[in-house]
Amino acid sequence: MGKRIGSTVFFENDVGIISVAATVGKKEHDGPLGSYFEDYSDDEFFGQKTFEKAESELQRLTAEKAIKKANLTCSDIDIIFGGDLLNQCVGSTFGLRDLNIPFAGVYGACSTMALSLSLAALMIEGGFASHSAAITSSHFCSAEKQFRFPLEYGSQRTPLAQWTVTGSGCAILKKSKSAPKIKSVTFGKITDLGITDINNMGAAMAPAAADTILSYFKDSGKTANDFDLILTGDLGFVGSKLLCEIMDMEDAPIWAAHDDCGKMIFERKSQDVHSGGSGCGCSASVLCAKIIPEMQKGIYKNILFCATGALMSPITTFQGESIPAIAHLINICME
Amino acid sequence: MGKRIGSTVFFENDVGIISVAATVGKKEHDGPLGSYFEDYSDDEFFGQKTFEKAESELQRLTAEKAIKKANLTCSDIDIIFGGDLLNQCVGSTFGLRDLNIPFAGVYGACSTMALSLSLAALMIEGGFASHSAAITSSHFCSAEKQFRFPLEYGSQRTPLAQWTVTGSGCAILKKSKSAPKIKSVTFGKITDLGITDINNMGAAMAPAAADTILSYFKDSGKTANDFDLILTGDLGFVGSKLLCEIMDMEDAPIWAAHDDCGKMIFERKSQDVHSGGSGCGCSASVLCAKIIPEMQKGIYKNILFCATGALMSPITTFQGESIPAIAHLINICME
Repeated sequence: MGKRIGSTVFFENDVGIISVAATVGKKEHDGPLGSYFEDYSDDEFFGQKTFEKAESELQRLTAEKAIKKANLTCSDIDIIFGGDLLNQCVGSTFGLRDLNIPFAGVYGACSTMALSLSLAALMIEGGFASHSAAITSSHFCSAEKQFRFPLEYGSQRTPLAQWTVTGSGCAILKKSKSAPKIKSVTFGKITDLGITDINNMGAAMAPAAADTILSYFKDSGKTANDFDLILTGDLGFVGSKLLCEIMDMEDAPIWAAHDDCGKMIFERKSQDVHSGGSGCGCSASVLCAKIIPEMQKGIYKNILFCATGALMSPITTFQGESIPAIAHLINICME
Repeated sequence: MGKRIGSTVFFENDVGIISVAATVGKKEHDGPLGSYFEDYSDDEFFGQKTFEKAESELQRLTAEKAIKKANLTCSDIDIIFGGDLLNQCVGSTFGLRDLNIPFAGVYGACSTMALSLSLAALMIEGGFASHSAAITSSHFCSAEKQFRFPLEYGSQRTPLAQWTVTGSGCAILKKSKSAPKIKSVTFGKITDLGITDINNMGAAMAPAAADTILSYFKDSGKTANDFDLILTGDLGFVGSKLLCEIMDMEDAPIWAAHDDCGKMIFERKSQDVHSGGSGCGCSASVLCAKIIPEMQKGIYKNILFCATGALMSPITTFQGESIPAIAHLINICME
């Protein structure tokens, strides 16, 4: 049974990530990580008629693939934690409705993969489930329409804006000695330093990432030197730089081990993505398509996965509010 | 450590609800349960300038009250699970942002109190937290504006519509032998029988409630006779009748023990609420203001709390989709 220190629960059981799957859109497949994404669609519709139905289909395909890769069926999964960016999380609820798996909806904006994965891991650690699953998605077209402008407007994007990834990632967990293991989870606090620029999510989220990483370092007694990789979700180029600066100021430098899914998934200039990728599907697809498989190959032994989310809505922005943010952190290890 | 059978986790520890608080609006205070609601606002604004800020304030007040009633401070709470009906769950994220408590966002539409309470309870059962909290809210004005029409339109409501409760409920959990104890939690599956009438949520949610209650009866070997009260969240008058009919057809009658928060909170005719109350705040405020305190007084010994949620969004309805629903169930007992 896990042991809690501060905001972190340290696991005593071997909570293994036994299967992962990711599905992405064409732009993500065309990017630098294209060779890692075996499942993708050549258009934004995934065979559906609307962007929202496409996002649900993205989740359904990804969940079914992950379950199949684990040699399981839906009836083997005791609980699935899922969420997304769409109002009322309909990417998840419509995507997963036919799977007949007990469902717990979560919302953490772009931090959702870390949140769903943390809770799915606690279900295994506590003996509350034999198999659990964590999933999330985002879709460029459904997100732009909902959070910014309909694509048909052809609005110009600002220099610090990020590009919402069309993608989904799903992980299946069970007790396992051989798979990459979740060793601890750290739940973040809501952090709001007063950023109001809705086109600069990285700046709003960087302090939340710093707060959670610092909490984990304090709770665990570890430093950046203990890890091959400290992977943030989607701070992008601007937010990543800010995070490294904050960590330097806090005398806990991470830049030597740090990378960010939002920086990795697109080629910044040729793909015209400004500050990089964003959206729950960004960190979910990079974690599930690249990082976990590379841990299985021995490329990474001990990593921190810290996904960050901006917790505003268009209406709070219209009402002049600043942008609260959160980050949840997971330590994944091959030992 | 809990033992899972089917969709249900049975607890082995004494996971107690040590403190509850609820806050409601004027209409709820004017209703039949008015004497149970000691904290209420005489207008819909709770001292704020917008309906959305009012809903956040409702959560903040309720969380702080519950924590204070437990003789705790925010720093004693290891994790709070919260969610609401607003896009991107901003009722919770803005309401709780200044509390500095590790936060896990959940989304289950009107089932949210059962979802947040289940997860908060598992944190205690697993030893992952010393104190955990569960909260949710809804607000008539912010919900009407978002899901139906701006109030200024003065739109006529259809006969089967429900009235979204302005209310919030919060529960604080820790290991305790004397408090009402959570004995098990059952996570529901998404159920969709093809209902498309967005003004008849009760019909969409009743099959989900039946599915989860039947799962629990199967997992536990119990029947309705084992309980003083089987309390559904907000099926209202129409959905409650349908649920009892489904349970009769399944040879698992519950009508003798059944009641519904959506039926209890308003006086149907004089308060002009058509099919009754709804919204996450409905079951949360009734559970926290009336039911748990009455358990402490010995009025109820053993109850099932089953909150139901309709998992659509306005956009899925506009796209011709039916309404998926879910219900999560908690057994609460004084023994």
